[in-house]
Amino acid sequence: MATIKDVAKLAGVSIATVSRVINNSPKTGEAAREAVKRAMEELNYSPDPNARALVSRVNDTIGCMVFDVADPFFGAMVKAIETECRAHHKHLLIGNGSHDAAQERETIELLISKRCEALIIHSKALSNEELTAYAQKSPGMVFINRLLPELPSRCIWLDNHYGSYTITQHLIELGHKHIACVASKYDIEDAHERIRGYQDALRESGLDQDEIAVERSEPNEEGGEQAIQNLLGRGSPFTAVVAYNDAMATGIISVLIDNGFRVPEDVSVVGFDDVIFARFSRPKLTTMRYPISMMASKATQMAMQLATGETSDHRAQMFRPVLVKRQSSAIAPQETR
Amino acid sequence: MATIKDVAKLAGVSIATVSRVINNSPKTGEAAREAVKRAMEELNYSPDPNARALVSRVNDTIGCMVFDVADPFFGAMVKAIETECRAHHKHLLIGNGSHDAAQERETIELLISKRCEALIIHSKALSNEELTAYAQKSPGMVFINRLLPELPSRCIWLDNHYGSYTITQHLIELGHKHIACVASKYDIEDAHERIRGYQDALRESGLDQDEIAVERSEPNEEGGEQAIQNLLGRGSPFTAVVAYNDAMATGIISVLIDNGFRVPEDVSVVGFDDVIFARFSRPKLTTMRYPISMMASKATQMAMQLATGETSDHRAQMFRPVLVKRQSSAIAPQETR
Repeated sequence: MATIKDVAKLAGVSIATVSRVINNSPKTGEAAREAVKRAMEELNYSPDPNARALVSRVNDTIGCMVFDVADPFFGAMVKAIETECRAHHKHLLIGNGSHDAAQERETIELLISKRCEALIIHSKALSNEELTAYAQKSPGMVFINRLLPELPSRCIWLDNHYGSYTITQHLIELGHKHIACVASKYDIEDAHERIRGYQDALRESGLDQDEIAVERSEPNEEGGEQAIQNLLGRGSPFTAVVAYNDAMATGIISVLIDNGFRVPEDVSVVGFDDVIFARFSRPKLTTMRYPISMMASKATQMAMQLATGETSDHRAQMFRPVLVKRQSSAIAPQETR
Repeated sequence: MATIKDVAKLAGVSIATVSRVINNSPKTGEAAREAVKRAMEELNYSPDPNARALVSRVNDTIGCMVFDVADPFFGAMVKAIETECRAHHKHLLIGNGSHDAAQERETIELLISKRCEALIIHSKALSNEELTAYAQKSPGMVFINRLLPELPSRCIWLDNHYGSYTITQHLIELGHKHIACVASKYDIEDAHERIRGYQDALRESGLDQDEIAVERSEPNEEGGEQAIQNLLGRGSPFTAVVAYNDAMATGIISVLIDNGFRVPEDVSVVGFDDVIFARFSRPKLTTMRYPISMMASKATQMAMQLATGETSDHRAQMFRPVLVKRQSSAIAPQETR
């Protein structure tokens, strides 16, 4: 059976070059890549994955930590990472962090112990210091949806404030004066930034600050149901709701319709993320598109490059969400409520 | 620092018993468990996870393969497995199989190579023979949503035929005579069984076999859109649609409403699974509840027990889906289309 040495000899390149071609390293020139591929075919050489992991400096498994794989936003993120892995013949291992410090620590350590060298980490509960320390031990670790001030070049994150500000502004332009906010109950940066964006938009438009009504809950459909029930129960007047994400918006709309409100004629409801069901909900959801697939692909490419020891010219990559107008937001009704 | 030996000595039990208590083995008696816990507290002994893995015969990581973590059905399955893992202080690694033989093989081997001893496998593309061979090498491997004739005691599966038959029967009872079927395009047992259930219900009710209209597509929202566009385009008359799952039903309803049909007044649409958004869709979806959380918990417990070498008195566990009537199915309209 042909070995990697035979391939190198026939192709007239070093073993390291063959290994780089096998591992799809972007550092290989096109000529060398062609020569190696021809030699592999001629010798009928098929690199065995275990041998490949030994030969290459890079383990062939990529690790990824998310909040909760059962959440559709993280489902979309994992899907993009997986597509990237598949294209580079890498395996993917996934763990949940649950926005809980002990759980996040455990999951990161598990992925490292399973020899994942390229790591895409969505951490919200651990401190900047602790994550920076992990990153220093793991050169292939990249952070998504987080900015570490000490390590901006390993971070890919979203301007949450801009997103929430923009969609609140959209409602203000539609004439809404009483805009409620349904936020995530988690004490995480995203939740704070999105509330700040909402508040800043209201303030800059000179809307009465007493009108600011924020209700916090679990960031899923049931959390949305609960939050809107509380808002309705309090009797606070509102003609629009800015929801933390699309799942909460879905729960909010469901309760509003069950209670005889028309969406958007009586109450406009907007989401965040643009997960797949946003465009299948009724009414179709106006939301901020979180470019998570693009961000996750980028993070995976960065992690793979860093894991091979490539010097990175990456800077912190800030992405921006985009307003997607659909049917759930409309001109404010005449003051009646 | 106290060691496991110190704990065993103080508790007056063997090291093996301490290890069983630490690993939550159900084989330990209540008295021994209490004694060990008291001794651990007294000595301030905290078992380190690596040491725990060494002491115990069982690795502390559970592996799970699903079709696609981004699919909400599999999200619910993973969530249940994770809850079970957490309760037993186990880690979870997840891989996608994508209903593709090469990919399923790769993922199973990856999980085994990462030393997962308890394994919950959702495989649809590999043959009974190949899965049976894997299972014989891995005593802690359990199959979910699959029945292996050689190894029924390692399988937990659903009566798909019953589910599809039951929900089609529900539509027939509502007076529908022209019932279309939107199926999964994958050549897997579930797809075949659900089509069979639909056909059998029609046949047993004496409905014209020429009326059987099956359209196959990707089992997600976009697949549902495409399938219903094809059905509408063909001009086949129908007043009801049996969808392969809730995601497809959602896509179907969206296209119907966009085309001026009222759901359920003009067309009834039913799903399968009862994933979370089924009760938040508009109209709320009539569907068959797939007890996937219960099945996944059971599978995880079985896998953990089998991995510790416990003799199993398990038989094949067949679960049944349950009809959940909501708003998307109603009495058939008068013949007009």
